[in-house]
Amino acid sequence: MSLFRAVRTPLSTSSLLCQGLRSVTGFGAGDAADHKVVPVEEARRFAEECLKSVGAKETHASQMAELLVSADSRGHYSHGMNRLEMYVRDIQQGSTRVDAEPELERSTSSTALVNGNQCLGATVGQFSMDLAIQKAKESGVGWVAAHGSNHYGIAGWYALRACDQGLMGLSFTNTSPLQVPTRGRECVLGTNPIALAAPGNNGDSFVLDMATSTTAIGKVELCKRKDSKIPNGWGVAENGQETNDPNQVLGKGGLMPLGGTEVSGGYKGYGLAMMVEVFCGILSGSHYGTGIRKWIGQHDVPANLGQCFIAVDPNCFAPGFADRMQALMSYCRDMEPAEGAENVMVAGDPERHHLKEVERLGGVSYHDNLVSAMAKLSAELSVPAMQPKA
Amino acid sequence: MSLFRAVRTPLSTSSLLCQGLRSVTGFGAGDAADHKVVPVEEARRFAEECLKSVGAKETHASQMAELLVSADSRGHYSHGMNRLEMYVRDIQQGSTRVDAEPELERSTSSTALVNGNQCLGATVGQFSMDLAIQKAKESGVGWVAAHGSNHYGIAGWYALRACDQGLMGLSFTNTSPLQVPTRGRECVLGTNPIALAAPGNNGDSFVLDMATSTTAIGKVELCKRKDSKIPNGWGVAENGQETNDPNQVLGKGGLMPLGGTEVSGGYKGYGLAMMVEVFCGILSGSHYGTGIRKWIGQHDVPANLGQCFIAVDPNCFAPGFADRMQALMSYCRDMEPAEGAENVMVAGDPERHHLKEVERLGGVSYHDNLVSAMAKLSAELSVPAMQPKA
Repeated sequence: MSLFRAVRTPLSTSSLLCQGLRSVTGFGAGDAADHKVVPVEEARRFAEECLKSVGAKETHASQMAELLVSADSRGHYSHGMNRLEMYVRDIQQGSTRVDAEPELERSTSSTALVNGNQCLGATVGQFSMDLAIQKAKESGVGWVAAHGSNHYGIAGWYALRACDQGLMGLSFTNTSPLQVPTRGRECVLGTNPIALAAPGNNGDSFVLDMATSTTAIGKVELCKRKDSKIPNGWGVAENGQETNDPNQVLGKGGLMPLGGTEVSGGYKGYGLAMMVEVFCGILSGSHYGTGIRKWIGQHDVPANLGQCFIAVDPNCFAPGFADRMQALMSYCRDMEPAEGAENVMVAGDPERHHLKEVERLGGVSYHDNLVSAMAKLSAELSVPAMQPKA
Repeated sequence: MSLFRAVRTPLSTSSLLCQGLRSVTGFGAGDAADHKVVPVEEARRFAEECLKSVGAKETHASQMAELLVSADSRGHYSHGMNRLEMYVRDIQQGSTRVDAEPELERSTSSTALVNGNQCLGATVGQFSMDLAIQKAKESGVGWVAAHGSNHYGIAGWYALRACDQGLMGLSFTNTSPLQVPTRGRECVLGTNPIALAAPGNNGDSFVLDMATSTTAIGKVELCKRKDSKIPNGWGVAENGQETNDPNQVLGKGGLMPLGGTEVSGGYKGYGLAMMVEVFCGILSGSHYGTGIRKWIGQHDVPANLGQCFIAVDPNCFAPGFADRMQALMSYCRDMEPAEGAENVMVAGDPERHHLKEVERLGGVSYHDNLVSAMAKLSAELSVPAMQPKA
């Protein structure tokens, strides 16, 4: 979940700066020889069948599969097929329910409170965002909070759902504690993402989808695997102090808020993470802060996450929204880049490039490790394996 | 405008980390011997009379004066009396109008578009936020965008106005271009602040009020005056590359977005600054991006800023909002601090400490330089000078 998430196919054209970052992040990166291209429809079929095989209703499985494949197609590999097994385990161990539906608990002309009833996150999220969209069309704004939800994938997916209908869409979720408040030493908040999608002209759009921590835990894990240091501003050790050692972050430390240390503005990232928690857990009455289950090893405990979905109709404000949005995006993209840098991008551009690559390749390029892991899952669940392109 | 803005009286108890920062920022800091304490009422009287002396209506002058003194009382000295002369010049040179009122251009049950008619920012902001509050009370949410506005002081002031009535309040403004997009080399966006205030119990609250740039331009100016370097992540030179030289930032460079360089997440700060611009200039139809007048030397050009004000009624969601808000704040404040750090704070705590100091001192502690500058202004405008406590 990042604005400048590097385009992660071997054919990437991202900048030198981003390549430095990409070599650290690495999800889905690597040589074409290590990868298999899987047609989008086939990837979706596989995810849906896996979820159905453990009891998910067809509609729920389809919603989740759509979300996962969309994440992969946009280059957010960490939130795509890579997470399928987690959703399967949550169903198998009963923390995600397959016999329920999200329900509307209360509403006004522009607000709603949804009980997700521990359904799959994509199901709760789609139900809630569609409600927000409907209310925005009727009253100008729809502001929906959901409790009893589960991990809902990329936040941007829900924001885009509103954007596709000409609205501004926003989405937020709390997550398992991984982020340490400025001056603290304990993980209190999650990576708590913020997503905003706003329409420009001719299908163009501004799509921000970012964690409020400097980086994702997966990027720290990758540094550990490579036995390399992490950059400043990424994480703290058990004593709460900044460290460049990934082992200390992953042991008893945690992620730093966006901004890093206090002198470089880390207290702002901490404030933003808390803002997301206010919109999610505090508003919806779900679990929040350290009350949320740990990221690893608690599949039997209901997550009861809180999420927030907002839609706003720009037509209720000044005429010409999309034209101005487009002009600002064009200005940024066309400006002279910094010395040594490639073109300036706007949020959503890397994902757009990645979608084009998927189209060109005829499918999503998955690393062999992912393909093997899915083959194992398919055997376990007696679901026909995911078939790469010949 | 920061979460951990150091308490800037000589009696501050802020942390070692913050003291490092404070020695860089310095507004209002220094020895008590360099300061004069001015009673809040007297400071307000002086600001109001100065504005009236150049033609502002009594209500408008009073709104602006209230805002300035509130900023100083909360420790945001950069946005208080320090800015009075700027507002006076804007009126004298005609870019701020004193013969108009903000007007409602269009509205739905939960949205409104306001034409600020180039009135003082505090007047436009108060009009707009009160509209948002009214709509939130009626429909659950009020989302108001204003164009034709001026510099409106601290964003948090408007958010607090909603919070004081038991609502969540949010406020955003675009500002003169000072921030350089990631990979770019030109100032395209302002410091574009985000403010959220949410009520806890017994008058306690969460109050985030932060620029989306790593730091304020004033902090860079201070480093220049002290002939010291600036930390990493604060600014770029004319070529778009990071620099530690304040002269390069202030010359033809600019501020970096929150997060600093790309590897430490600066693209997220850039995305957030753009999000604020979407809510402000893009939604309201005001000037935006590089269309906004420069920060210095353009008092004769109407600012036509865009602003956004949101109020949300927590009572439309899960019962117990304030209790959960309070519990999360208490958890953070009570947690064991990092090695060598003072207590963990939540957004709004430094301002609360400063307000207590103001109460203890019987007024706001102003640096002698500020008091002298105000004496000069009082002579020019033939307004009785601001009288410090005996």
